Amino acid sequence: MIRNDDLETLDPADWDEFRQLAHEMLDEALDMQHDIRDAPAWRPIPESTGARFREGRPLDGIGTQAAFADLRELVLPHPTGTLHSRFWGWAGGQGSPTGMVADMMAAAMNSAAGNFDDAASRVEAQVTQWMKEAMGFPEAASGFITSGGSVANLIALAAARDAHAPEDSGRRGLSGGPPMVFYASSETHSSMHKAAKMLGLGLDAVRTVPVNDAFRMRVDLLAPMIEQDRARGLHPFAVVATVGTINTGSVDDLEVAGEVARDAGLWFHVDGAFGAIAALSPHTAHLVAGMSEADSLAFDFHKWMFVNYEAGCVLIRRHEDHTRPFTTSASYLAPLPRGTAAQPDPGNLRGPQLSKGFKALKVWLALKDHGFDRHGRIVWQNVQQARRLAEMIDASDTLERVAPVALNVVAFRHRVSGLSDADADEFNRELLMRIQERGIAIPSHTIVHDRFTLRACIINHRTRMEDLDILVDALESIGREVLSEMGGVGAERG
Amino acid sequence: MIRNDDLETLDPADWDEFRQLAHEMLDEALDMQHDIRDAPAWRPIPESTGARFREGRPLDGIGTQAAFADLRELVLPHPTGTLHSRFWGWAGGQGSPTGMVADMMAAAMNSAAGNFDDAASRVEAQVTQWMKEAMGFPEAASGFITSGGSVANLIALAAARDAHAPEDSGRRGLSGGPPMVFYASSETHSSMHKAAKMLGLGLDAVRTVPVNDAFRMRVDLLAPMIEQDRARGLHPFAVVATVGTINTGSVDDLEVAGEVARDAGLWFHVDGAFGAIAALSPHTAHLVAGMSEADSLAFDFHKWMFVNYEAGCVLIRRHEDHTRPFTTSASYLAPLPRGTAAQPDPGNLRGPQLSKGFKALKVWLALKDHGFDRHGRIVWQNVQQARRLAEMIDASDTLERVAPVALNVVAFRHRVSGLSDADADEFNRELLMRIQERGIAIPSHTIVHDRFTLRACIINHRTRMEDLDILVDALESIGREVLSEMGGVGAERG
Repeated sequence: MIRNDDLETLDPADWDEFRQLAHEMLDEALDMQHDIRDAPAWRPIPESTGARFREGRPLDGIGTQAAFADLRELVLPHPTGTLHSRFWGWAGGQGSPTGMVADMMAAAMNSAAGNFDDAASRVEAQVTQWMKEAMGFPEAASGFITSGGSVANLIALAAARDAHAPEDSGRRGLSGGPPMVFYASSETHSSMHKAAKMLGLGLDAVRTVPVNDAFRMRVDLLAPMIEQDRARGLHPFAVVATVGTINTGSVDDLEVAGEVARDAGLWFHVDGAFGAIAALSPHTAHLVAGMSEADSLAFDFHKWMFVNYEAGCVLIRRHEDHTRPFTTSASYLAPLPRGTAAQPDPGNLRGPQLSKGFKALKVWLALKDHGFDRHGRIVWQNVQQARRLAEMIDASDTLERVAPVALNVVAFRHRVSGLSDADADEFNRELLMRIQERGIAIPSHTIVHDRFTLRACIINHRTRMEDLDILVDALESIGREVLSEMGGVGAERG
Repeated sequence: MIRNDDLETLDPADWDEFRQLAHEMLDEALDMQHDIRDAPAWRPIPESTGARFREGRPLDGIGTQAAFADLRELVLPHPTGTLHSRFWGWAGGQGSPTGMVADMMAAAMNSAAGNFDDAASRVEAQVTQWMKEAMGFPEAASGFITSGGSVANLIALAAARDAHAPEDSGRRGLSGGPPMVFYASSETHSSMHKAAKMLGLGLDAVRTVPVNDAFRMRVDLLAPMIEQDRARGLHPFAVVATVGTINTGSVDDLEVAGEVARDAGLWFHVDGAFGAIAALSPHTAHLVAGMSEADSLAFDFHKWMFVNYEAGCVLIRRHEDHTRPFTTSASYLAPLPRGTAAQPDPGNLRGPQLSKGFKALKVWLALKDHGFDRHGRIVWQNVQQARRLAEMIDASDTLERVAPVALNVVAFRHRVSGLSDADADEFNRELLMRIQERGIAIPSHTIVHDRFTLRACIINHRTRMEDLDILVDALESIGREVLSEMGGVGAERG
C-alpha cells in the first residue's frame, strides 16, 4: 500500500529558499515595469536563445533556482513590448503593477472562476455590474468576463444567431435552415469573420457594408441591403457596428445603426474592443452615443482599461439570450442549494469555457486602486496625444496621414517621390521593421486604400509627450537612411 | 496642448511603498499555500462580505493600500478550494507555488501571446513540442495552448467538422449542407454538446453511443451506428473517445474506437481532459494505448498537470486541419519578415482568441522545475490513492461504490435503508453539502444510474494518506448526524 513516505508534491522542498527566490523574482518584475522607459521597446531573440527554446522535454526537473535562472535569461528580456511607453501597435495596453499583484494572488488562490460559490464569482458579478453601470446597460443584463474581444464577439454573435434562428436549431443545427446573414462594415474586425466560420454561418454570412471617406459604415445603405437580402431568400439576423476600428479608429454611427437594426427586427451588436472605453470620459462619451441601446456589447479590459493580459467582457441585454447557445445539461455541474456548488448563475452556461481563471480580480483591484474616473482621464489624454501626433505628422515634410483621427488611432505613411507604389510600400515596411528592431517604438502596420500604412494606436498610460517626438524623429531619420539605401531621390512634401 | 504635467498613469505614485505592499502580498500568497492543510477546504461567504461585493462602482480610487486591504479581507478567505489537500471535486488541480511565480512574471511582461516574435511564442512552441513528444504525436503536428479542455474540444471539433464538410462550407456555412453527426458515449463531457451547439451542428449531431457496465463506450456498436446513419442520409464525420470520464473516470477503448473511425473514414478525437496525463506514468500509460493515433487530442494543464488556472492544450495531427476553421485575412495581422510581427505560425489562426495571455510560461516553468517524470509519479500516486479510498469505502459498513476505479475517480454513496430513493438522494446531497460547508473536504456530486452520487476525483499533489481517513470518517459521522435528523432507521451494510 502506498504510504506518506512515498508521496511527492509540487510544493517546494525548502519553503524558505523558495520564498527568497520568489521575492527576488517579484523585485525583478517591479524593476522591469519601473525601468521600462529606458529599455528597448522590443528586441529580436538571439539565435543562441532560440536554440534553448528548441531543447527537448525535461524528464528530470532542474530545480527552482535553475528554472528561475532560465526564466530570467531566456524569457524576461523578450516581452511582446506592450508594457513599453512607446508601444502603440495593434491595440494593446500595458497592464499595471496593481494588475500584476492581482494575477499573482489569483494564481495563489487557484480559483476556478464562474461555477462555484466563491470570491471569484462574486468579484466577477461585481465587476460586470460596474461595467453595466458605466456602459449604460440595465442592471438585469448579463455581464460575463471573457478571454478578450474576439470571444466576446463570438459569444454575442452566437446569442444573436440563436435568438433569430428557427426554434429547433439548437437541436437540429443550421443544416436545414435558411442562410443567416449579418451586416458589418468593410472595416469590421476579423474576429467577426472568424466567428461566422466557427458558428457554421460561413464567411458569406458577413454582408459587407461599404464605408465613407472617414471609414465609417454607410448606415444609409443598411436598410436597402437588408430588404434586398430578404427578397433573395437570405435570413438577416444582426447588425454589427464598430467603435474604434483597428485600421483608423473610426466609430460607426451607433444611433442610426441601432435604429435600422431595431426597425428591421434585427439584433444590434457593438464591437467596442477598445473604443467602448471612450464611455468613461466626458470628453469622448458622445462618440459612443447609442451604445447603451445595443443588444450586446463586446470590449476588452486588456486594451484601454490596461489590465494585464488577458481579460475582456461581453454584456448581453437579455439573460436568456446569453445562455441559449451554451446551455447543456450535465449532472456533475448541477448547482446545489448550499456548499461549493451553490453558484446561481454558472459561467459555463454563458461562454465556451467551463473552467476559467480568476480574471476578474485584476479588473476589480485596478478599479478599486485607481477608480473609473482616472481611467476616463487617461482615455482622454491618449486621445489628445493622438491628436498631437497627428499635428506633428501634418507638420512634417516627409510624413502624411491617411485618415482622420476619430479617437486614438493615427494612420500615416512616409511619403516618398520617385518610387513606384510597390517600392513605396516596401520602403514603409522596411522603415517600420527597423524602428521595431532597434527598440525605438512599436507602431504597427495595415493596408489602407490598398497601400501599406503605419499606424499608432495610443492606448498607453505610460506615454509621455517626448515619446511622440522620439517616434517622429525616428520616422524621419531612419526614413532618410532607408531611402538612401534604396537609391531613392529623397523624400519630399506634397 | 496637453503637457507632461497633465498626464496620469496607472503606475504607482510611490514605487517604494508599492514594492513593500507587493512583497507583503507575496508573503500572504505563499503563506496561503504553505498553510493550506490547516485551513478549511471551503467556507461560505458571510452576508457582510456579500454586501461589500454588491457596492457600486468606484469613481475615485481608494489607493493601493486600501485596495489590497479589501483583497485581503474580502477575497483571499474565499478561494474555490482547489488548492486544498482535500479538494477532490469535479476535476481540478491545485496549481503550485512555481506556477504562481510564473503567472506573476507573465503579468509583469504583459505579453500578448501567440502572434508576435517574442518569448511567449517561443515558450508556447517549446511546451507544445514537449507535449507532442510526451503524447506520442508527430513533431509536425500542431500544438496550441487553450483556456482549457472545453475550448480544446471545441477547436478539435471545428477542425474535424471543416475537414469533412463540403468544400465551400467555410464560405457558405452549414445551411445548405447535409446534417453532420459525430459519435461519443453517453458519458462524454458536456463540452462536446456545447461545441455541437456553438458550431451550428446542433445537439442532435451528438450521436450517443451506450456504455457497458464499466461506463466504457460500446465500441462494438460504433460501426453499425455509422452505417445506419449514413443510410438515413446523415453525414458522420467524427468519433470522440474519452480518457477519464467525469462521472466515474472510465477510459474508452481508444485502439478499437480509433480503428473504427479510420475504417469508416472519420476523424478520431480523444478528449483526455485529465486522463490523457496518464501517459506520463509507466504504470498507467497502457490505459491510453491508441491515443497517439488520434487526429486530435484535448487535455488540460490545470487539471492533472497542476498548473494554476487556466491552461489547456489541443494537439492536431495535420496543421492545415487546425487552421482551416480559424483562418481569415486581416491586413493588420499579416506577419512581416522581421520585427515584432515576425511570428511564422500565428495563434489567432488556431483558435477563437486573438490576444492571449502568456499561459505557456507556468507550464514551462513547472516542467523545468519538477520535470515530466515527477509529474508521472504524482499521477501514479493519485491512482493508488484512489484505489486506497475505494478499499476504505468497500470496507465501510455504510458506504458503497457505484463504479469500478479505472483511473483516479471513486464514485460512491452513503447507503441507507428505510428511505425512499428520493430521500436517500436527499440524504446524500445533505451529507455532501455539510462536508463542504464545514470545510472538511470537497468531493463533488453527479448522477449515476439515476441516483445522486458522490465522487472523489483524486487530482492532488497535496493529498496525504490521512486526508482519505478524514473524508471517510466525516462521511460516516456526518451521515449518522443527518440520518438522525431525517428520522431514518440508521445506516446498514448490504
